[in-house]
Amino acid sequence: MAQLRAFEAAEKQGHEIPELVCFEKQADWGGQWNYTWRTGLDEYGEPVHSSMYRNLWSNGPKEGLEFADYTFDEHFGRPISSYPPREVLWDYIAGRLQQSDVRKHIRFTTVVRLVAFDEATQLFTVTSEHLPTGDTTTETFDHVVVASGHFSFPFTPSVDGIETFPGFVTHAHDFRGAEALAGKDVLVMGSSYSAEDIGSQAYKMGAKSVTASYRTAPMGYEWPERFEERHGLQRFEGSTAFFADGSSKDVDALIFCTGYMHKYPFLPRELAVSGANTLYPERLYRGVVWHDNPALFYVGAQDQWFTFNMFDTQAWYVRDLILGTAELPAAADRERSMTEWQQRYHATSTNGADQIRFQADYVRDLMGETDYPTFDIDEVADIFVDWKNHKQQDIMGYRDYCYRSVMTGTIATKHHTPWIEELDDSLERYLSPGSARREPSGARA
Amino acid sequence: MAQLRAFEAAEKQGHEIPELVCFEKQADWGGQWNYTWRTGLDEYGEPVHSSMYRNLWSNGPKEGLEFADYTFDEHFGRPISSYPPREVLWDYIAGRLQQSDVRKHIRFTTVVRLVAFDEATQLFTVTSEHLPTGDTTTETFDHVVVASGHFSFPFTPSVDGIETFPGFVTHAHDFRGAEALAGKDVLVMGSSYSAEDIGSQAYKMGAKSVTASYRTAPMGYEWPERFEERHGLQRFEGSTAFFADGSSKDVDALIFCTGYMHKYPFLPRELAVSGANTLYPERLYRGVVWHDNPALFYVGAQDQWFTFNMFDTQAWYVRDLILGTAELPAAADRERSMTEWQQRYHATSTNGADQIRFQADYVRDLMGETDYPTFDIDEVADIFVDWKNHKQQDIMGYRDYCYRSVMTGTIATKHHTPWIEELDDSLERYLSPGSARREPSGARA
Repeated sequence: MAQLRAFEAAEKQGHEIPELVCFEKQADWGGQWNYTWRTGLDEYGEPVHSSMYRNLWSNGPKEGLEFADYTFDEHFGRPISSYPPREVLWDYIAGRLQQSDVRKHIRFTTVVRLVAFDEATQLFTVTSEHLPTGDTTTETFDHVVVASGHFSFPFTPSVDGIETFPGFVTHAHDFRGAEALAGKDVLVMGSSYSAEDIGSQAYKMGAKSVTASYRTAPMGYEWPERFEERHGLQRFEGSTAFFADGSSKDVDALIFCTGYMHKYPFLPRELAVSGANTLYPERLYRGVVWHDNPALFYVGAQDQWFTFNMFDTQAWYVRDLILGTAELPAAADRERSMTEWQQRYHATSTNGADQIRFQADYVRDLMGETDYPTFDIDEVADIFVDWKNHKQQDIMGYRDYCYRSVMTGTIATKHHTPWIEELDDSLERYLSPGSARREPSGARA
Repeated sequence: MAQLRAFEAAEKQGHEIPELVCFEKQADWGGQWNYTWRTGLDEYGEPVHSSMYRNLWSNGPKEGLEFADYTFDEHFGRPISSYPPREVLWDYIAGRLQQSDVRKHIRFTTVVRLVAFDEATQLFTVTSEHLPTGDTTTETFDHVVVASGHFSFPFTPSVDGIETFPGFVTHAHDFRGAEALAGKDVLVMGSSYSAEDIGSQAYKMGAKSVTASYRTAPMGYEWPERFEERHGLQRFEGSTAFFADGSSKDVDALIFCTGYMHKYPFLPRELAVSGANTLYPERLYRGVVWHDNPALFYVGAQDQWFTFNMFDTQAWYVRDLILGTAELPAAADRERSMTEWQQRYHATSTNGADQIRFQADYVRDLMGETDYPTFDIDEVADIFVDWKNHKQQDIMGYRDYCYRSVMTGTIATKHHTPWIEELDDSLERYLSPGSARREPSGARA
């Protein structure tokens, strides 16, 4: 969406833009934010893209991800809270595009099967399939921008004895809601955002207990009663989970919150980003140009504090490289730049604030190359640092805090209902006065 | 496995065989019978192939699927029961290959990404990826045999309001066991084998109730108490399912038993079987030769009563066509043959016996073309007809019946424990004297 918007912005300024084809596996835009109740494989037998679940609310303040060229105020016409639910964020990002003409470039329900680069012609051959008909198409392109994200293919390690575990097993990617975990003993494996939020969802929806198993370090929040962290899930014997300290616990459900893989089934190895989820993936000049073949780009391939506005900045820069209004440095200069940034990245402490500042510097550097509307990046970084502190203070209440928009100065309003009590995540409920609490639509009496 | 075995049999007879490469996505052989606890996407982010679950026992008598060239007696050295559990059947089919040298042809954990046919060279270009390394390889082949099956890609229709359903939702493909359904109200959507067996599993494991929703006709067995069929699941409102007769039921779990799709993501449309699951797919001469490009073959692409021995017969015939020891009729003759068989197929009644005889005739016809060891096909068809009658008589007890092997004359032994009481599906338990009932390994006290 950012890439299409970037080209349209150039076109409106009078630039001639190339023919654009956007291949989108889903039936609508929004990517990760396009919720589906489906799990595993979709209606066409393709891997489900979105990892969203019911009652997912933004886990970072919206003031950290606001578009510089389309503000929340512009979309909603009034202040809203800092942590909106999924549908509200989907509405916001879709709203920007609904005011544009970019939909014409998108081939929905069309999956890219294979991308091959021809050294002789210097063109990419892209084989795609229109899923409803099965029609296979092969076309050539000068440039390819990979913008399919890297939070869609679950990494699921094995656990000794898991084949004897009779309970509910899923990965965060296929988790769709915690209502059915009420009254259950729930084990989440992991210590990052998925574990934190899915564990919290289970708690919120009435789990009997939540146990989060960490490998290296606990999340370390002040968890409420019924929520604990244990070190090192080692094995299962039937329903019993055993941990590194020799303790055990009978559980009803296991949710792997073990992260995602860089996976691009349509790319040959020599074109594919791989490795861990990091703030500065290898072989990507300025985080977007595939060094070994600079006609190939990635948007959003890094781990993220900044999200929507960072994607925009990347897309604007990629656009300028493709249009030729920005110049790609020589290979040796790109190598030097990548090495420098990698060194800086590895010198950051794992303490969040340091890494937030690193990504702020990355975005700033990229922004200097484009005409994407500037904004106070340090102020956004400060918001992220505050956010981390608020989580330390109150992990079940941090979503009730309000922030000030860096773009408009607007102070967010307090949501009518505290997050821990709000069981209806619909746009309709969110925008309502909220005087009368409704029963959650999905809850069983 | 059948195709490799077929070529090896020819080689042992002194035939020169072509270079064989078998691409296998999984880490071991056995296909569908290679159980995994994983659901959705596997450890490499690829769609999980197997649709098997814990406590899956053969739902047809083993005497109907016995290999003519490798009998159950030969493998187990003694009579066993007629309905073995999954691991026992896997052991049997793997046992045949362990005595052979075919493993050298198989590239495990290697997925085929794309097959393209080049009219100029008359060769297939096959692009594959070795999943552990990501290495992409492109090779050419004279022939391609598609033997990836068609019970791996779930067909999952939408249901109005399903996004409001807070319970457990999965498709039979991702169903791994019914233990967690104990005490629950379970809804299975469908009226074929998956609905029949997963509904029965839920019942066996102590579901509070099982409701099977059919679209056209009920399965019509004499279900026990706590098990009923209802017509036409129409919609959900939260946990409540509504049916065509206006009735409703609150349920905790929904399992889509709505079948599978012909899906070959690696094939362009012009090479891919599509459409419904049928005893005689279109464009497949003799059920195996892709009419529009007879260098492409399918093994096992039809719906099945006969299974392992039919796959063998198909593989032997495909082998002979590739070796040139069988002659492919001219296109017009193939057309005529396909039309005749299609007409015959459409003339069968949907009554099972008629369709069983149809497939018996199909196997007989194919067998006449090969040197696959002959056996009394009518006797096998009789077994299937008996089986259907036994199911009518006792849907929860039919697996306790014993049949006589068509290959060896051996009468199956009665399993030491009635199916409805047997909660341990391991090979070890199955082959044990079974005097002492063990607690199921996965059950929670």
